[in-house]
Amino acid sequence: MAKNTVVSTSVIKRLPRYYRFLGELKQNGIVRISSGELSKKMGFTASQIRQDLNCFGGFGQQGYGYNVEQLYSEIGKILGVNNNRKTILIGAGNLGKAIASHMSFEQRGFNLIGIFDKNEALAGQLIKNIPIRHIDGMYNFCKDNSPSVAVLCIPSDSAKEIIDELIALGIKGFWNFCHYAIAANHPDVAVENVHLSDSLMMLSYRINNL
Amino acid sequence: MAKNTVVSTSVIKRLPRYYRFLGELKQNGIVRISSGELSKKMGFTASQIRQDLNCFGGFGQQGYGYNVEQLYSEIGKILGVNNNRKTILIGAGNLGKAIASHMSFEQRGFNLIGIFDKNEALAGQLIKNIPIRHIDGMYNFCKDNSPSVAVLCIPSDSAKEIIDELIALGIKGFWNFCHYAIAANHPDVAVENVHLSDSLMMLSYRINNL
Repeated sequence: MAKNTVVSTSVIKRLPRYYRFLGELKQNGIVRISSGELSKKMGFTASQIRQDLNCFGGFGQQGYGYNVEQLYSEIGKILGVNNNRKTILIGAGNLGKAIASHMSFEQRGFNLIGIFDKNEALAGQLIKNIPIRHIDGMYNFCKDNSPSVAVLCIPSDSAKEIIDELIALGIKGFWNFCHYAIAANHPDVAVENVHLSDSLMMLSYRINNL
Repeated sequence: MAKNTVVSTSVIKRLPRYYRFLGELKQNGIVRISSGELSKKMGFTASQIRQDLNCFGGFGQQGYGYNVEQLYSEIGKILGVNNNRKTILIGAGNLGKAIASHMSFEQRGFNLIGIFDKNEALAGQLIKNIPIRHIDGMYNFCKDNSPSVAVLCIPSDSAKEIIDELIALGIKGFWNFCHYAIAANHPDVAVENVHLSDSLMMLSYRINNL
């Protein structure tokens, strides 16, 4: 796909899900799949699937279906899972530690190289062989290592200052677990928000309306 | 709002965000706010905000704006944050531990009463004064305590069996951190999925397309 081709956000948002399902098929040794079969597994209609995948150049062949390996690899390229972007994580509290140890960053295009926290007592602890460093060392670390992505697991009230500094240090993308509205203040960086408490309230609403 | 009033999903999805912003205003002692001011803070247009809030009966008054306390409380009711639903968490690995200790369940309408894991070595450890129990005790615990919500922090491959059992035990809502497609198999329960690896891939895509 040409860079900057305009594809609707709703299609893009489904790509990780396609990627996951195709990864499972691949692991199970399945070589090809029709849009109809993919439809049954994923809960989208077959025509939706054909439309979605056509946006990226149509990897399917009439009467054969999709080559699982090829489609997996193409969607992976579109998502950028082989980019290996240097990434740092800020805030090694419960959530930060869990994200650092639980997530397969390297399989999603990221290379976690540094973890920072303002709590000096944490300094030196290892998560996946990466030492937690005191936040005061962030500046020099970024100057030396040029990370391009930051994962924010800090409280919102300390976010603004750190985000401004990180952007000045060359961070281009944020995986944001705090509630500070980065995108509103910095339209030029890529932001993906994970608002866990919003998600929990959505669950509450859904149960209310069962 | 009458139960089951049909409001579009996109409006509903913005409610937790309104609720958060209004909570901050309330904490800062702000008594009323116009749709214009709310618009500046939240990044939605003022007309969008008026439309959204009109769906729930229009709490604003011409020339006065919205009463922050009242709007906060009304949206809270719609979201069900005072419901105090009995909740259990399954899977006390890194992620489960972080979710149990990090999230303010009680402020979102949930009362975390039990934590379960298949790893016997974890049994007896406390998270927020709640002991981790072995998964074999889940059946009796549910029979005795009747939780209605489960948080799933388990691998997908062990999910199906546990979900089937939980639904048989009366669980009506799932906060699902694993990739098992609950909704496709159980259309009658409420499900809110948190797919962290999908979110991370979306970030990768966004950085790619800066």
